[in-house]
Amino acid sequence: MAPQVQIIGVAGMRDVRPGDDLAALILEAVRGQGADIEDGDVLVVTQKIVSKAEDRLVDLRQVEPSTRAQEMAARMGKDARLLEVILRESRRIVRQEGGVIICETKHGFVCANAGVDTSNVGGGVVSLLPENPDESAERIRAAIQQEKAGASVAVIISDTFGRPWREGHTNVAIGVAGMRPVKDYVGETDPHGYVLRVSTMAVADELAAAAELVMEKLSRVPVAIVRGFDYQRAEGSARELIRPRERDLFR
Amino acid sequence: MAPQVQIIGVAGMRDVRPGDDLAALILEAVRGQGADIEDGDVLVVTQKIVSKAEDRLVDLRQVEPSTRAQEMAARMGKDARLLEVILRESRRIVRQEGGVIICETKHGFVCANAGVDTSNVGGGVVSLLPENPDESAERIRAAIQQEKAGASVAVIISDTFGRPWREGHTNVAIGVAGMRPVKDYVGETDPHGYVLRVSTMAVADELAAAAELVMEKLSRVPVAIVRGFDYQRAEGSARELIRPRERDLFR
Repeated sequence: MAPQVQIIGVAGMRDVRPGDDLAALILEAVRGQGADIEDGDVLVVTQKIVSKAEDRLVDLRQVEPSTRAQEMAARMGKDARLLEVILRESRRIVRQEGGVIICETKHGFVCANAGVDTSNVGGGVVSLLPENPDESAERIRAAIQQEKAGASVAVIISDTFGRPWREGHTNVAIGVAGMRPVKDYVGETDPHGYVLRVSTMAVADELAAAAELVMEKLSRVPVAIVRGFDYQRAEGSARELIRPRERDLFR
Repeated sequence: MAPQVQIIGVAGMRDVRPGDDLAALILEAVRGQGADIEDGDVLVVTQKIVSKAEDRLVDLRQVEPSTRAQEMAARMGKDARLLEVILRESRRIVRQEGGVIICETKHGFVCANAGVDTSNVGGGVVSLLPENPDESAERIRAAIQQEKAGASVAVIISDTFGRPWREGHTNVAIGVAGMRPVKDYVGETDPHGYVLRVSTMAVADELAAAAELVMEKLSRVPVAIVRGFDYQRAEGSARELIRPRERDLFR
């Protein structure tokens, strides 16, 4: 039979607050729409609600910008306190031009503003990426598996990143638990006996992108269930998706 | 209700040959699995079968490598005839290091080997990207809409590209017809009244990535139907996904 995958948006979650039990809120919302989490599901959770639950929020009014942040802010016409937060989250500035600042975060992700985000938070407060998104994913996974005894699920924490060469943003995986984030075709041959040129697919990123199709930014769908995708069960980590600097021609 | 999207693999297609009517083959395969194409569907078609149907195939035995191709081949330890084909397909070499050659194709896509591919073709023959993937998509779209009177469908031609900073490949859209490939959130505000930082999502790339989840490289699923995604109907073009060089910090 033809393979089939379903992407189910999880709506109806209330605003997440610091200290909330995300797994419980997600399960409640899933069940509230008459569904449930099933064995083999991949749960894609947007970074924003994870950061809120983990209190990764910074009130800009309490930030003292460094001299470097002040200089950059003046040059870029930006808020020095915001730049201070971005610099604190960064291991390195990869590119900076005009109003755009591409950072390598402490996790090793390359993205605009080191993932520091002013939207969907409110009141001069910005959100940071989770400190350890793999651990965030694992906590949700473990809690759901405990509640759903016997079910094996994978969890992906997703964020919206830009990329070089192509317009528009896509969702990618910044945290992974319960699955291998890549799928290898190494040494496999196609039906003509040729060794496949493309050997590794970033399936966790493709799952995050697929989930975004039901995650309308304005309609409060912060979680999606991807059902029917045959992933490889493993501990998993989004670190496998970060290209080491020495193998990267663009860093 | 919670939004839901289905991704349905289309299996059972025979090997595509030059001159084949792709739309007819796809419809036959879809119906062969007891399904049909419906109004609002997005059809994602892998580049490889489009290139085959359009006879974008080159027999390396008939390629005369230029001096430049020979020099590069010697330096990289590669086939000079293959490099000749890659150079012909390229507008420019973006990076070259070790065995990796990142090209800007004549269409403006930035990818390895200018999209020239040795897999899934056979017998010393390589495939090139379609000459105009938007037109390829439009031909399939028009033929399907004619057959399915009243149904409005969108078509995406997908290919597998690498990307900087992140490991693994993902599927992206190289041809688009019948939909806007991006979705703008410009000027829209989130529930807190904040203007959204991320303003443009590359939905055609996310649809291509989602389709890849059912397109096992080894199992002959070269087409997928994405059902339930509310896209913006328009003529569409994958050119909208190419970042102009002057706005690209990495070209």
